[in-house]
Amino acid sequence: MGLWYDETFDGHTRLGLRVKETLYSAESSYQKVEVIDTESFGRVLVIDNVFMTSEYDEFLYHEMLAHPALTTAPRIERVLVIGGGDGGTVREVLRHSDVKQCVMIEIDELVVEAAKRYLPGIGTAWNDPRLDVRFIDGIDYVKKSDDEKYDVILLDGTDPIGPGAVLFNEAFYEGCKRMLAEDGVMALQSESPLLMMDVFVETQHKLRSLFAEVHPYLGPVPLYGTGTWSWTWCSDTGEPLRPVKERQEAIIEGSKAYNPELHQAIFALPNYVKRALKL
Amino acid sequence: MGLWYDETFDGHTRLGLRVKETLYSAESSYQKVEVIDTESFGRVLVIDNVFMTSEYDEFLYHEMLAHPALTTAPRIERVLVIGGGDGGTVREVLRHSDVKQCVMIEIDELVVEAAKRYLPGIGTAWNDPRLDVRFIDGIDYVKKSDDEKYDVILLDGTDPIGPGAVLFNEAFYEGCKRMLAEDGVMALQSESPLLMMDVFVETQHKLRSLFAEVHPYLGPVPLYGTGTWSWTWCSDTGEPLRPVKERQEAIIEGSKAYNPELHQAIFALPNYVKRALKL
Repeated sequence: MGLWYDETFDGHTRLGLRVKETLYSAESSYQKVEVIDTESFGRVLVIDNVFMTSEYDEFLYHEMLAHPALTTAPRIERVLVIGGGDGGTVREVLRHSDVKQCVMIEIDELVVEAAKRYLPGIGTAWNDPRLDVRFIDGIDYVKKSDDEKYDVILLDGTDPIGPGAVLFNEAFYEGCKRMLAEDGVMALQSESPLLMMDVFVETQHKLRSLFAEVHPYLGPVPLYGTGTWSWTWCSDTGEPLRPVKERQEAIIEGSKAYNPELHQAIFALPNYVKRALKL
Repeated sequence: MGLWYDETFDGHTRLGLRVKETLYSAESSYQKVEVIDTESFGRVLVIDNVFMTSEYDEFLYHEMLAHPALTTAPRIERVLVIGGGDGGTVREVLRHSDVKQCVMIEIDELVVEAAKRYLPGIGTAWNDPRLDVRFIDGIDYVKKSDDEKYDVILLDGTDPIGPGAVLFNEAFYEGCKRMLAEDGVMALQSESPLLMMDVFVETQHKLRSLFAEVHPYLGPVPLYGTGTWSWTWCSDTGEPLRPVKERQEAIIEGSKAYNPELHQAIFALPNYVKRALKL
């Protein structure tokens, strides 16, 4: 039996996975990047000792980040993904045939290299000609870029610690909004309201100061250990519960979780979340 | 810093809680019963080294077991709870003023004793005059009882191992159905479709052979470590998405999770569950 690899969430709670084999371990200029093969979650990407994504449950995270935004934005021709070095988010984006260009901004090339080699089942769209991967800092990109505006922006950052912390700053969100079409939709992972209620609430307040429509939604990501993860749908126009049916129908068969009923369901918030947000 | 108390789910995945203090530890004729005080989940009931319920997240389990059934059954005067020695389920049942009698069948008196003493925040309804707690085996009760039939039956069993395993047998479900009014509603915890898909699917099949309407629903229970837990709503008549509004309104303010939108949302199943059930 292999040794346990534990992630300790808050100093007091840990999720442990039994490791069959460490497939990859390296230090980039930014962080420690590992890929471990586990008994119960398959291959797992670990960054600075934090479980990032696994073969077993990655669909629950990536489908939920991508499809609520991509099925509701008025146009989805140009899509920006910031972070997401494992390739799962851009894979989901590129399943939409209306997407003409997907720019992915990832600070750490080593993550993509490790993912391409050891997690080929997650990043299946690396060779899609519509994909444009650039290894630069997301916060610099949204500040300085003079690229055209985007129809959809997806923020696939890590936790608000380490090199990913800036992706939770108001300045960064402002930069994203600058890059977003006026009627565009932005979606982001926004942490767990159970494990990190303060970060979750703070993030909602930052987003509300920038966008007219800010709608958190919830779902499970077993690897993140708390039973409930959150993402947030943001826009100045439109609303998240009127998806384009044709776009939904085109992706249902290839989705392991996402379907039209689930799209409506994930926006229903339990009382403890509504109360924390004064909704 | 306290030591870790880990529950290993499947031999390969574990959830660990840092323990401040072990408040109670005893062996009954059936099982080992412990109450530990933890940093992140508050007080936790542990049976045979399996985390049962915690002060921190118990509402997510108990509200989801009780209210979908109690807001949809035609009548809720007589309610039967089998298991649930911590007292959380009967507490939720007795919040409904239409309930005139709640019989709770728990095999192990030691669990109730430990819960009364160390988890008073969970079992707040022990002194309700409508509550009738009987320490007998649930499977014997539903076989032999000549009590009147029940309007609602809630099965709050542990996992299908140890003394609770019989509560997942078809014979037991048949006994429950015998005790249920013709238009009554039964609800039960039915394990995790992520961690124990085989048990989940098998349970659905057993229930479908007995009830005309069998509807699993999903929600998070962080203590159970997989991100998604399931319960199942069963009846021969009626359906789960037409709750009685007055009953919902009466309990919203006192509920930490349950509300009418969530009631509708929890029955939306992700594709991987629908496919496993051939829905």
